[in-house]
Amino acid sequence: MSNDRAYNFSAGPSMLPLDVIERVAADLPNYKGCGESVMEMSHRSKEFTKIIEDAEADLRTLLSIPDNYKVMFLQGGATLQFAMIPMNLMTGSKKADYIVSGSWAKKAAKEAAKFGDVKIVASSEEDTFTYIPKPDKSEFRPDADYVHITFNNTIYGTHYNDYLPDTGDVPIVADMSSCILSEEVDVTKFGLIYAGAQKNVGPAGVTIVIAREDLLGKAPENIPTYMDYKIHADNGSTYNTPPCFAIYVAGEVFKSILAGGGIKPLHEADVRKAQKLYDYIDSSQLYTCPVAKEDRSLMNVVFVTGDTDLDKKFVAAAKEENMHNLNGHRSIGGMRASIYNAMPEEGVDTLIEFMKKFEAENK
Amino acid sequence: MSNDRAYNFSAGPSMLPLDVIERVAADLPNYKGCGESVMEMSHRSKEFTKIIEDAEADLRTLLSIPDNYKVMFLQGGATLQFAMIPMNLMTGSKKADYIVSGSWAKKAAKEAAKFGDVKIVASSEEDTFTYIPKPDKSEFRPDADYVHITFNNTIYGTHYNDYLPDTGDVPIVADMSSCILSEEVDVTKFGLIYAGAQKNVGPAGVTIVIAREDLLGKAPENIPTYMDYKIHADNGSTYNTPPCFAIYVAGEVFKSILAGGGIKPLHEADVRKAQKLYDYIDSSQLYTCPVAKEDRSLMNVVFVTGDTDLDKKFVAAAKEENMHNLNGHRSIGGMRASIYNAMPEEGVDTLIEFMKKFEAENK
Repeated sequence: MSNDRAYNFSAGPSMLPLDVIERVAADLPNYKGCGESVMEMSHRSKEFTKIIEDAEADLRTLLSIPDNYKVMFLQGGATLQFAMIPMNLMTGSKKADYIVSGSWAKKAAKEAAKFGDVKIVASSEEDTFTYIPKPDKSEFRPDADYVHITFNNTIYGTHYNDYLPDTGDVPIVADMSSCILSEEVDVTKFGLIYAGAQKNVGPAGVTIVIAREDLLGKAPENIPTYMDYKIHADNGSTYNTPPCFAIYVAGEVFKSILAGGGIKPLHEADVRKAQKLYDYIDSSQLYTCPVAKEDRSLMNVVFVTGDTDLDKKFVAAAKEENMHNLNGHRSIGGMRASIYNAMPEEGVDTLIEFMKKFEAENK
Repeated sequence: MSNDRAYNFSAGPSMLPLDVIERVAADLPNYKGCGESVMEMSHRSKEFTKIIEDAEADLRTLLSIPDNYKVMFLQGGATLQFAMIPMNLMTGSKKADYIVSGSWAKKAAKEAAKFGDVKIVASSEEDTFTYIPKPDKSEFRPDADYVHITFNNTIYGTHYNDYLPDTGDVPIVADMSSCILSEEVDVTKFGLIYAGAQKNVGPAGVTIVIAREDLLGKAPENIPTYMDYKIHADNGSTYNTPPCFAIYVAGEVFKSILAGGGIKPLHEADVRKAQKLYDYIDSSQLYTCPVAKEDRSLMNVVFVTGDTDLDKKFVAAAKEENMHNLNGHRSIGGMRASIYNAMPEEGVDTLIEFMKKFEAENK
C-alpha cells in the first residue's frame, strides 16, 4: 500500500478511500485555485454552497432518495440523534417502540424514554446481542409515533439482512451509522435514516439525516433550536455554521463511489470480503464467530478464540503486521474486523493469511 | 503569498495559519508514520488520545486556565451552546441575565428564555449595536444563576475592551467565538467561556467550552445526554466520537501560537493591524466606522461609504484584487474586514492601499 499505510480495521473512525485522502491533501492549501482551503471557507461562499449542494445531490443519487425526503448534514453524532429523534417525532401519541439489538440501540431507547413512552418491543440482550430480534407485527403499538431499529450493530456484528419489521403505518427510524452506503436500501421503507459519518462516509463530526418531509415540523417550540430538524431542513443545513470540512470530505467520498459505478459494485465487493472472512472463520479450528449466520454484518466481523489471553496476543501480533485495531469493543473483548467500504480486498486477504499463520502457531 | 492564496477577510470560517495548513496536508495520508490519517483514526487510539490531550494542555498553557476549570471540545457551535448553557447552569433560581450587544447575544437570550426566566439587563439594539452597553451592578439580579455576555460581536465589530460588568458573585458566561486567543484573558473572572473554532482556532465543527468545575453537575437528568457538560468533562470530550480532525487542526494552531511565543506577541500584532486600519478609516473622507471608539473590535473592523451601491462596488473590486469576503453581514450590509490572528499584517497593508486607491477613484 502506498505511503506505508496500515490496514485499519477500526470500528470507526476508520479507513477512507486513499484517492479521496490524496485529493483532499492536494487541494488543502488552495481548493481548486480559489485561494482558500475548504477549512477556511465561509459557509455562505459560492464555493462552499456548491460543495454542500453537490454532496447532497450525490448522496441522493447514490441512495435514490425521493424528493419528499429531506437530507441534512448535522453535528453531534448518533448520540445527539438519540435525543433529536424523540424530540422531533415523538409528538403525536408520545409513544415510540424500540428493538434493542445492541448497546447503541439500548442507549437510543434509554435516551428516548426521557421524552415519552418507550416500549422495548424485543431485545437480544440475554444472548449478548448475537442475533437480530424479529418481533411480529402484533407486538408493535399501532399508535406509536415511530419504531426505532439499529440497522447494523457495530459492536456485535449483526445486521438486518432479509428481515425488516412489519410496523404497518408506523414509520421506521433506522440508525445506519455503520452500514450506510454499503448496500442499496429502499429509502421509502423508512421514515428517517441517520448515520454518523465516521465509518463509510467521512471524518467524524458530521451526521447524515434523511427524513420524510411530512414527519418534520411537529416539534414543540421550546426544544433547542439546534435540535429542530425543520430548521436545518429549511436552511439547507446552513442555519448555523455546519462542519464544512467534514461535509466536503464526505462529498469527495460520494464522488469517488459514483465514479466507481455507485453502490452496487461496492456492495458486491463488501459481500466478497465478508464472505471469505466468515468462511474461513467457520472452517477454522481456532476462531469462532458467535453471531447467528442469517444476521451477520458485512461491515463488522466479530470473532473469538475462546481464550482471552490468546485474543490479546492475536491483536498485538496483528498490529506488528500493520493490521490495526482488531480488538473487539472494550465492552465485550475478543476480536472485530471492521471491513468498511474503504478496506481494500487485499486487506481482508492479508488478515486471513495472518489468521491462518496465527492458528498454525497457536494450536 | 504562497500558492496564490487570497487574503480572506471572512468573518468565519476564515484564514488559518499557512504553516498549519501545510503541516496538516503533509501529514494527511499518514500521520507521523502511524499508517493512518487523523481523519481515519479511532478516537480511542493512543495516537488520537495524545492529540486531544496535547490540544487541551496547550490551550490551558495559552490561556493560563486554572485546574478548577474543565476544558471540553464539543459539537454544534455556539447555537447549541445557547441551549446547553441554560440547560446546565440555569438550575438554581432559574434566572439568568443577558446583555444584548448584537444579533448573536440576542439569539442567545431568546434561546435561554425557553428554559427559564431571562432578563435583558441592557441592549444597544436601538443604536444598531454600535456600542457595548455597560449596565451598573444594581441592574443585575443578585440571585441570577449567571450573566451572559458576547465578548466580541462579530457582525457589529464591538468588543468588551476595558469594561467587564460587575456582577458580584454571579458567574459571567462569555461567548468568545470571535476573539478567543487574540488576547490574554483572566479566566477566573468567568464562570464559563465558549467559542466556536471557526475564527481563531480551527475549522468549523468544534466548539471549545471552558467551565468552572463547581458549576457543572447540576443539570436535570432528563436533558439530552449530549447536552450535559459533566458527561463530556468527565470523559475528556470522548464520551461519544468527537470531531477528531477539527480538534487535531485546532491543536496544530495552538502549537503554532506557542511556537510564536504565545498570545502576547499575537495580540500585539492584532493591535497593530487593527489600529492602522481604524486610523486610516478615521482619517478618510470616504469611509466611516460607525462603532464607538472605546468599544471597537480588534477582530472585525466594520466600515461603510454611506452609499450602498458604492459599498457593493468596493467589495467586488476588492475581490478582483484577491481580497475576499469584505462584505458586511447580510443583515446590515456595508463592509467588514475580519482580521483574525491568521490574517498577515501585509493583508491589512494591502487592504489599506486598495482602500486609498478606491477612495481616490471614487471621490
